Amino acid sequence: MKINQFAVVDTPFETQLKELATIGFYDEPVQVAHAKNATAVWRELLRIAFPEVQDGRVKFRDIAINTREDLAGYLNSGAPVTEQVFNAVALQLLGFVEDVDYTFDKVAEAVATINLPLYHKAGRWDADDVLTAWYQLLVTHTRNGLQFIDDLASRGYFMKNNVPLFFNGKAMATFDTSALIREVVYVETDVDTDGDGVRDLVRAEVIRPDTGVKVPTLFTASPYYQGLNNEANDALVHNVDVALLRKTPNTLTYEEIKYEPEQEALPEAHEIAGEVTETTESFTGTSHVDLNNYFLARGFAVVYSAGIGTRHSDGMQDTGSPEQVASMQAVVEWLAGDRLAFIDKHSGQTIKANWSNGKVAMTGKSYLGTLATAVATTGVRGLETVISEAAISDWYQYYRDNGLVIAPGGFPGEDMDVLAELVYSRMLDSADWHLTKMQWHGFQHSTAEHMDRATGDYNTYWDARNYLNSVPNIQADIVMVHGLNDWNVKPRQVFRLWQNLQQLPVVKKLYLHQGQHIYINNNRSLDFADQMNLWLSYKLYGVQNQAASQLPDVTWQANDQAETWETVHEWGTTTPTTLPLAAETATVQYEDWQIADDFATYKQDFNAWRQQMLQRENDKLDVNRVVFVQPAFEQDVVIDGEVTLQLRIKSSADVGLVSTMLVDYGEARRLATTPQPQGVLIDRGTGWQPTPLVEFQLAKPTTEKMISIGHINLQNRTAPWRVDDLVPDEFGDVALTLQPTRYRLPAGHQLGVIVYGTDFEMTVRGNQDIRYTIDVEQSQLIVPLQDNTQK
Amino acid sequence: MKINQFAVVDTPFETQLKELATIGFYDEPVQVAHAKNATAVWRELLRIAFPEVQDGRVKFRDIAINTREDLAGYLNSGAPVTEQVFNAVALQLLGFVEDVDYTFDKVAEAVATINLPLYHKAGRWDADDVLTAWYQLLVTHTRNGLQFIDDLASRGYFMKNNVPLFFNGKAMATFDTSALIREVVYVETDVDTDGDGVRDLVRAEVIRPDTGVKVPTLFTASPYYQGLNNEANDALVHNVDVALLRKTPNTLTYEEIKYEPEQEALPEAHEIAGEVTETTESFTGTSHVDLNNYFLARGFAVVYSAGIGTRHSDGMQDTGSPEQVASMQAVVEWLAGDRLAFIDKHSGQTIKANWSNGKVAMTGKSYLGTLATAVATTGVRGLETVISEAAISDWYQYYRDNGLVIAPGGFPGEDMDVLAELVYSRMLDSADWHLTKMQWHGFQHSTAEHMDRATGDYNTYWDARNYLNSVPNIQADIVMVHGLNDWNVKPRQVFRLWQNLQQLPVVKKLYLHQGQHIYINNNRSLDFADQMNLWLSYKLYGVQNQAASQLPDVTWQANDQAETWETVHEWGTTTPTTLPLAAETATVQYEDWQIADDFATYKQDFNAWRQQMLQRENDKLDVNRVVFVQPAFEQDVVIDGEVTLQLRIKSSADVGLVSTMLVDYGEARRLATTPQPQGVLIDRGTGWQPTPLVEFQLAKPTTEKMISIGHINLQNRTAPWRVDDLVPDEFGDVALTLQPTRYRLPAGHQLGVIVYGTDFEMTVRGNQDIRYTIDVEQSQLIVPLQDNTQK
Repeated sequence: MKINQFAVVDTPFETQLKELATIGFYDEPVQVAHAKNATAVWRELLRIAFPEVQDGRVKFRDIAINTREDLAGYLNSGAPVTEQVFNAVALQLLGFVEDVDYTFDKVAEAVATINLPLYHKAGRWDADDVLTAWYQLLVTHTRNGLQFIDDLASRGYFMKNNVPLFFNGKAMATFDTSALIREVVYVETDVDTDGDGVRDLVRAEVIRPDTGVKVPTLFTASPYYQGLNNEANDALVHNVDVALLRKTPNTLTYEEIKYEPEQEALPEAHEIAGEVTETTESFTGTSHVDLNNYFLARGFAVVYSAGIGTRHSDGMQDTGSPEQVASMQAVVEWLAGDRLAFIDKHSGQTIKANWSNGKVAMTGKSYLGTLATAVATTGVRGLETVISEAAISDWYQYYRDNGLVIAPGGFPGEDMDVLAELVYSRMLDSADWHLTKMQWHGFQHSTAEHMDRATGDYNTYWDARNYLNSVPNIQADIVMVHGLNDWNVKPRQVFRLWQNLQQLPVVKKLYLHQGQHIYINNNRSLDFADQMNLWLSYKLYGVQNQAASQLPDVTWQANDQAETWETVHEWGTTTPTTLPLAAETATVQYEDWQIADDFATYKQDFNAWRQQMLQRENDKLDVNRVVFVQPAFEQDVVIDGEVTLQLRIKSSADVGLVSTMLVDYGEARRLATTPQPQGVLIDRGTGWQPTPLVEFQLAKPTTEKMISIGHINLQNRTAPWRVDDLVPDEFGDVALTLQPTRYRLPAGHQLGVIVYGTDFEMTVRGNQDIRYTIDVEQSQLIVPLQDNTQK
Repeated sequence: MKINQFAVVDTPFETQLKELATIGFYDEPVQVAHAKNATAVWRELLRIAFPEVQDGRVKFRDIAINTREDLAGYLNSGAPVTEQVFNAVALQLLGFVEDVDYTFDKVAEAVATINLPLYHKAGRWDADDVLTAWYQLLVTHTRNGLQFIDDLASRGYFMKNNVPLFFNGKAMATFDTSALIREVVYVETDVDTDGDGVRDLVRAEVIRPDTGVKVPTLFTASPYYQGLNNEANDALVHNVDVALLRKTPNTLTYEEIKYEPEQEALPEAHEIAGEVTETTESFTGTSHVDLNNYFLARGFAVVYSAGIGTRHSDGMQDTGSPEQVASMQAVVEWLAGDRLAFIDKHSGQTIKANWSNGKVAMTGKSYLGTLATAVATTGVRGLETVISEAAISDWYQYYRDNGLVIAPGGFPGEDMDVLAELVYSRMLDSADWHLTKMQWHGFQHSTAEHMDRATGDYNTYWDARNYLNSVPNIQADIVMVHGLNDWNVKPRQVFRLWQNLQQLPVVKKLYLHQGQHIYINNNRSLDFADQMNLWLSYKLYGVQNQAASQLPDVTWQANDQAETWETVHEWGTTTPTTLPLAAETATVQYEDWQIADDFATYKQDFNAWRQQMLQRENDKLDVNRVVFVQPAFEQDVVIDGEVTLQLRIKSSADVGLVSTMLVDYGEARRLATTPQPQGVLIDRGTGWQPTPLVEFQLAKPTTEKMISIGHINLQNRTAPWRVDDLVPDEFGDVALTLQPTRYRLPAGHQLGVIVYGTDFEMTVRGNQDIRYTIDVEQSQLIVPLQDNTQK
């Protein structure tokens, strides 16, 4: 077991004492003992380290100093305190298990292996040493994924006085989560998407501690939040078994399709009848983002809004639109004191967020993180930071790519309209639904036209939903988290945002993990929640904890070993190396067509299809693809960023597409991309919203692994908005940039590139009989390779 | 969607009014409206049916009467209340979705299809009708698995006044779960299993509402509760790749191996220093049995104890032993006021359960339910009832069968000592562990000897752990739940208990579901939690709700369709039919041996091995087995109870075993044995311990399904305690009774019997080269077939 903590702030001894005093570990008995000796201090600290019992001494008999002595006897004997005995006890307090995690004859080795930030000093300790060691112990992680002080809190250590308290720069769980205030407001936006002439109201649900202190807010914009129309969604999923269509060539430039927001007059405001200080509507159900729950116990409010076009709100549902973003921006403005909200949709009674300190962070994964990013690009006042996980920065890249309709991994046939249908939860209130049913169908018809599945080209509709265009407006500091094996929201989404942010004077931090489309805040080997605590205590509470320099710029989970998180400063800045595609220079061919039975089988189980496609040799699929394999590397190399495949290729038809996968060939145990539950729950406060502790584990050995993927329409060689001609059987050059990665290819492994046509999971599947030919000599692979010294 | 409610108690109108009054739905405005007309009553009831808002009328605009009118308009128009409009609104209040679950033109059909117990009366309703319909609505299930009144409670309907309240015979969620009292006591038992001369203390953890009312208790005896030694468990798992050994024949009778408890003198009692009324130790962590959580919100206390030989308790760990049972019995006695408990292990301060009304139910699944059953067989005072799910009634049947070592499905190599190692959680306190480490190893050595893996025979050790012997002592009423596809704790465990209980004057209720080793209290299609609420309100609170007659005797989940629970009165009483094993009468042979590669493959994935074994034809495995298939049945038949295979068989060696599977051959969509989460959480109170709502779903079509299984050692033809001779190549008769079932075999399907030797999941796997020969003419199948009229 290995734990990586990056949120432990180095703290001078005098500050340690002050902080220990604020959390009750430097009370009078400890102070008196401090003046005596090390053993006395240790005993006093231990006495109050068992919140379950009135006097911790009753637990001393259960704790061993070694295989012969218990803690009670040791303390009574007056024997000296040393690193060995302190840490032997510390390991037990932290929940580590003898003979599994440590043995008494190898305590120091266990501390080093598990990578615990415990105090280190040879010889006999004095009372100061014990206090410093205790301070370090409190910020060290237990076996179960919490700092020891958080573990004590979950066991009832703190009085729930609803007053903010910070230790080692991080907010403590001192808030009473059993008495949270839950209230509903309806925020007035500037948009009128349902065209009734009046500004759309959006419902926001507030969960906040019952305290006189003004608190900051974590706001999660989630269109899913008010319910889903699963059946309507399923009915709208598009058929992907359609032909790739020939497109009429054009000479469009980006300027011609660029989105220019129109300055429309503000719709009519709602009439104001008065202002009140209490809401009349509450709500139930739990806060559904784990990280938010963690902060609710620590003096932060949490707000959810599903935005326009969802249950209890006005408006139409338009995936990723500027209007949807504006409706979420409005919620931030209300929290910052810059906008009106009402207590219901009809009374005209307004209410202020007078409990808010005006500082907001937006949080969430996937669609939720996407809207957080999008709102940041409005530059709205009050939004201090964003923690966006697995977020989309450009919707075109989510449902399209290089002039092709490309499905998010696992969701063939999904699209902007399908997602809108899923979350247009106004359907769930029958009377409300029948009011807008006809309008909604018309609206969806228009969305389907604009998103244009026929060509897959980038157009003005998509440009309006590409938040990268507005990155220069960003004022907020940005924390980004993304899985390098996320083929749903693919890594380019965060890569482009990260690149664009480099020019801005905001703080940006990046976490690249080896998972698929997941959260990492309950991972055992990384103290992500602690780091976000440090970060938001700094950003939203103004705690001077050096969070901006304490957090690594880029934290990268190593792909070749478990529980290893490395820190670097950049991503994707390595100068690329050009490699020949193969030693042989003949042309090669493949045929993009399947007999009906195979076609049906691959469609039905596209995961099995991909597994077979990844194999270095596969009798059945070898005719449908070419596999180019590089010579083995003599030492580990790191691929840092985007790999580009330059192909000279021809199609036997006047249409064509190229799909490609970058592959690591070589037998190895690789990390599973879904972390496994570890059989324990992490408490998010004191008996509050427990969540499973998880960890990425090494799976059984495999002989290959997909590193990256890419697709391009051969009629979009120039740009996704521009249609090129494609002449049958005539070679042309195409540069296909794959999804970015950071990947350590172990010595002895080989880098492979598989080139093929139909991608049964992601492209359309017309089963057109097309033959492709590659001029190998005129093709190459451009790889940003870091040599081993930069490892 | 179909919901089956069995806990709705038929209630006279006057009682309905009284009950409505107690829960706030017959307050003064409703009474005034009652005197006016139906519309007025309905409006007043609806006004208070939205706990989220101060006045429910703001929600009337969201609810439709039909596709054109909303509820607000309808009520204002003074139009009549009819079943159509009431139920259209009811469906929405219950969370059903238009166009998915119902349409406005087919409301009555939807109510019938979903099987909702709503009020039914043609024509215009009067005010009485509306009140009755409202009463019925309150006890009708929502789409999300709760009675509507429980749904309202979860949304904050009730004041949490910590006073018991019953509606339709069931306890309501009126208790404040955010302020539960958690306290620890150490109960003094009558046993001294660690041999220190003093009675073992066992820790019990109490969670109870903070109320002046004396409350009953749900007690769960769970050796798992204080933590697990997973690594030590894994290290002790037995090698099953060992030969089946020749046993020396004997003539033992049951009387010779019968367990006779010794009357030992009571060990020394703990010294009493005084009595206190408050504990000094608390605990954290959640209550881990969902059904217990449900009752915690409804005025019941919950107690957990892990018993002797677990963390914080004294004693050795001896799976299923009389001493383990006695230690759990002691906890019941403390709750009933008949036994001492201390506030810690050393102070001598005693404490009474003065908050307890003296009435206890024991609950839990698997090991937990096993100990509940076992404690019931002590006849202990205070134990009013037991709800035992997937419980063991005879440990021999769990790890052995008919003279063979037989693993619980999925756990080859597990045994009594391995399970003891898993739960001897005293290991988790290092100092305590080192005190007993040597003693423990000796104890485990002795357990390993007594359990006797070498012969697999039933002996005195096993007889002491067979609770069926003590069924006549049972005083408590028993509710049993078991999965007919539970191959871990197999169905015979509950069948034998059910059979033995028939002679006793206690109430016994049985639920047979189609799942594997699971709980059913969060299943959508059955109101199991409601039924248990009715039952425990009756048994523990003395509510006169006719629970004993209201609950069906036997509730059987149909295997051939989803969401269907049928009620019958008996199980396994059908007179069996004797069928020839096959039309052909020649002898048949099979060879129980695999080449090394296949042996390794089958070992590694015994699930895949079983799937292949179940196939009607399998080139590779056909040599290792015989498949006998009955002619197709012309109509549905029900197999009710135990199937017996009578074989005349010979082994080519002086050892031998028979394994057999009973199979349904015929293509069909069958229920998955693990219920699927339905994407919603069931609230167990008000924001209290939400649990996923689940349902058994029909899986993709399969051509076969295992109905039952059985194994026997050919040297135990007479009895499991008696060793018969086995002469190589000499025929002998053996009767192998398979695990009981209740299974509807659809018309056109065929009943198959597969006879084989090594069971890669359950038997030892010596890979001995043994040839078996069956004399088909002298063999037959005895099947308890119910004809279709009893369907």
